[in-house]
Amino acid sequence: MNFKIYYKMSILIKNIQLNNQIKDILIEGQHIKKIDDTISLQADKIIDGRHKAAVPGLTNGHTHAAMTLMRGYADDMPLMPWLEEKIWPLEQKLTEDDVYWGAKLACLEMIKTGTTNMVDMYHFFAGTARAVDEMGIRAMLTYAGFDFELHTKAETYKKEVKQYFESMHQYSDRIHFAMGPHAIYTVSKKLLMWIKDFAADNGLKIHTHLSETPGEVKDSIKKTGLRPVEYLESIGLLNSNISLAHCIYLNDTEIKMLADNGCQVVHNPASNLKLSSGNNFRYKDLKNAGVTVALGTDGTCSGNNLDMYETMKLASLNGKAAWNNPTIWNAEETFKTACEPAQELTGFKTGKIEETYLADISLIDLNLPEMTPNFNLISNLVYSANGNCVDTLICDGKILMENRHVPGEEEILKQATRVAFDLIKR
Amino acid sequence: MNFKIYYKMSILIKNIQLNNQIKDILIEGQHIKKIDDTISLQADKIIDGRHKAAVPGLTNGHTHAAMTLMRGYADDMPLMPWLEEKIWPLEQKLTEDDVYWGAKLACLEMIKTGTTNMVDMYHFFAGTARAVDEMGIRAMLTYAGFDFELHTKAETYKKEVKQYFESMHQYSDRIHFAMGPHAIYTVSKKLLMWIKDFAADNGLKIHTHLSETPGEVKDSIKKTGLRPVEYLESIGLLNSNISLAHCIYLNDTEIKMLADNGCQVVHNPASNLKLSSGNNFRYKDLKNAGVTVALGTDGTCSGNNLDMYETMKLASLNGKAAWNNPTIWNAEETFKTACEPAQELTGFKTGKIEETYLADISLIDLNLPEMTPNFNLISNLVYSANGNCVDTLICDGKILMENRHVPGEEEILKQATRVAFDLIKR
Repeated sequence: MNFKIYYKMSILIKNIQLNNQIKDILIEGQHIKKIDDTISLQADKIIDGRHKAAVPGLTNGHTHAAMTLMRGYADDMPLMPWLEEKIWPLEQKLTEDDVYWGAKLACLEMIKTGTTNMVDMYHFFAGTARAVDEMGIRAMLTYAGFDFELHTKAETYKKEVKQYFESMHQYSDRIHFAMGPHAIYTVSKKLLMWIKDFAADNGLKIHTHLSETPGEVKDSIKKTGLRPVEYLESIGLLNSNISLAHCIYLNDTEIKMLADNGCQVVHNPASNLKLSSGNNFRYKDLKNAGVTVALGTDGTCSGNNLDMYETMKLASLNGKAAWNNPTIWNAEETFKTACEPAQELTGFKTGKIEETYLADISLIDLNLPEMTPNFNLISNLVYSANGNCVDTLICDGKILMENRHVPGEEEILKQATRVAFDLIKR
Repeated sequence: MNFKIYYKMSILIKNIQLNNQIKDILIEGQHIKKIDDTISLQADKIIDGRHKAAVPGLTNGHTHAAMTLMRGYADDMPLMPWLEEKIWPLEQKLTEDDVYWGAKLACLEMIKTGTTNMVDMYHFFAGTARAVDEMGIRAMLTYAGFDFELHTKAETYKKEVKQYFESMHQYSDRIHFAMGPHAIYTVSKKLLMWIKDFAADNGLKIHTHLSETPGEVKDSIKKTGLRPVEYLESIGLLNSNISLAHCIYLNDTEIKMLADNGCQVVHNPASNLKLSSGNNFRYKDLKNAGVTVALGTDGTCSGNNLDMYETMKLASLNGKAAWNNPTIWNAEETFKTACEPAQELTGFKTGKIEETYLADISLIDLNLPEMTPNFNLISNLVYSANGNCVDTLICDGKILMENRHVPGEEEILKQATRVAFDLIKR
C-alpha cells in the first residue's frame, strides 16, 4: 500500500523566532499551512524552535554546481590563462558520473548553508538533475549552450536540449528545466534565436551570462554595433523570462531596457571580486529602475564556496565601499535579495515564510557567539554569521538536515574526493 | 604539592596534515617540542589527527573585543551619526563588568574561529584582561587613550595607565601590556609624547589608529602641516614598536617612512568596507617597501564578527578587485598575513608550527563540503572555508576547544546577552 499520494506529512515547529515574534509554524505536505501564536494540532514531527529563528531557504541565483570538483585547483590567476590552461582542459575530461558527484557535493554544501533553490548552468545535464533530485533541494537547471558559430555544434546542442527537456518527467517537480545559452560571445545569433523560440514554445525561462567584463562589452560593440543588453533586445531575447548573471558593465540605457522588459539580474560578488571582473555593480541604479536583483555564488572555481550568507555580506560590504555609501545594501534589503527573487527567477513559490508558500525553511541556531546578542536577527545573519548558523533545513516540506547532519554526507565527501583526484590524473 | 611549576603537560597529535605532509606533533608545556614523521612517546593527551590539518592559531591584529555587546545594534549608517548617536552614548554607560562579559564573548568567538592572539584597544582595561586571562588565549592589550587636548583628561589617563601597567603581575604571561593612544585627532601631541616616553622606558609596544578616512588626513594637514604618518614621524613615534591600524590613505613618502622605521600596519577590510572608509588599501606597495602587514577584524560594531578566516577572504578578494589584479593577495600570502606578523606585532613567538614556537595550533576539520576536494589546503582555508572549519584549538599548550565545544560557552552567551540588553535599556 502506498500512502505517498494520499497522505501529507506534517511538521510542527513550536516557539520559533519569526520576524521578531515567537510563532508556531505548521507545514503540511510541500507547503506552509499555518502560522500562528500557538498551533495545537498533531503533527508527524514536532520541532522545538526555542533558541532558533526561522528564515526562508535562500536562492543561489547563479552557479555551476559540479565545479565543486575543481575547488582550489587553480586560483590567483588572470582570467584567460585560468580558463585556457586550467579549467577548460579539465572540463574536456568530465563524465556524467563526475558531474553527478560534483553536484551532490554542491547540494550538500548548499543544504549545510541554508540554500534550498539554485539556478545552475553546466554540462552533462542528467548528472546534475539526478543529484538535485536525490538531495531534495530545488533547482532551475539549464544545459549550458555553446556553438562558437559552428553549425554542427548548434545542431548537436538543439538535439540534446530536446532530449533533456523530454526527460524531465523522470525528475521531481522540485526541478524546473530552463534554457542556458552560455554567453553572447560563445553562442551564435542563430542559436540564440532558436533558444528564444524553444523557450517561448515550451514556457521555459532563459538564463545566461552577460556583461561580465569590459572586453565582452567591447567585443559586442565591435561585432554587432550594440552593447550586450542592446544586442539581446535587438534579437528579441529580453522579457520577464530571462535572467542575466553578472551585468557589471551597464550604461543607463541598458538599465532602462532591463527594467522595461522585466528582466532579472544576478549579482555574483565573490566571483567578480576574485577574478577582478569589476566591483562596481550598479545595484542602487538597477533597484531604482525597478529591476529585480538576485544574488549568486557562481561556480566554486571562481567563488570557491556556495555559501549565500557569505555572498550577502560580500555584496553589501563591497557595494557600500565601491559607491562610498555605508547606507546602501542595508541588511534587510540584502537579505531579501537572497530570498525573494525566487519565484520570478526560478518559478518556485518560495523565499518567504507565509501561509501557502512552499515549505523551504532554515532554522537558525541562535546559541552561537556570532549571533549574540540578538538585537537584530537580520543584521547578524548578513554581517556576522555565515551559512554554518543553519541548524536544520527543510525543503519542500521535508527535513534535509537536522542538528547540522545530512544523511549520507560522509559518502558524498568520499566519492567527490575520489572523482576529483581521478579527474586531474586522467 | 603543586606540580604546575615542575611538570609540563604534553599533547601528542598523531597523523595530521601539516604543510601537505602527514606528521606527528608533540607539544610539551607551552611549546611545540618536536615535529616528525612518527613520534613514539608517551603523552598526557593523544589526539587523532586523521582527516584534520594543523595550522597556526591566527592573530587578530586590531579589535575592540568588548564591542561584541553592541553587535547589530546600529548598522548601515554614515560614520559620524553612527558614532555620535549610537555607539558613543552606549559606551558612556559601560561598566567594567560589561566589558568583562563582552570580552569573554569575543574570546569565545575567537576560539571558535581559530584565533589565539589579538591586539585590543578599549575602555575598562581590567575587564578585558580578566576575560582573556580566564579564556586562555593570548593578547596584547592596550588601554584606549583620549584627552581631546584637555589637561585633566590627560592626567587621569596617565595615572590609569600606570596603575594598569603595575597590575600586570596579576595576569598570565599570555597577556602583554601595550600603549594605545586612540588616534592623532583625539590625543594631544603632549600626551602622545608622554606615551612614547612611557613605552620606551618600559619596553612597551604602541598601537593606534591611523589614516582611516580622507577627513583625518585633511585635518592633520590643516592642524600640523603634515600628513598623519609624517606627523607621527615628526614627534618621534615611528619605530619598530608601533603598529598602525587602517592606514588606507598613504602616499609614497609615507609608505617609505613606515618601511624605514620598521612599523607594522594592520588592515581591517570588513570595517573599512562596511563604513565605506575606503577599499584601496595599498597592500602591494606596502609589501614591496618591506612593511609588515597584518590583518584585523576591528570591533564587531563595524566588522560585526571576529572571524579571521572571513577577514582573509575579504582582504584578498577586495584587494584583487580594487587593484584590478587577480594575482595579488594570493592564498598563501594572505594566509601568512594572518599568522606570521604575530611576534613583531605582539611580542609572542607564535604564528608558525615549528619546533620551539609557542603551541598555538588550530586543527582543521577536513571532512567538510567547503574543504572538499583538498587539492590546496590554504586555498580552501582562505577562499572557501570560514572560521567554523576549526575543530580543535590549542593555545599555549592547552586545549581550549575540542570537537567545537568550549567549556562554559553556554554561560558566556547567556551572560553576554543579559549584559547587552541591560546596557541598551539603561
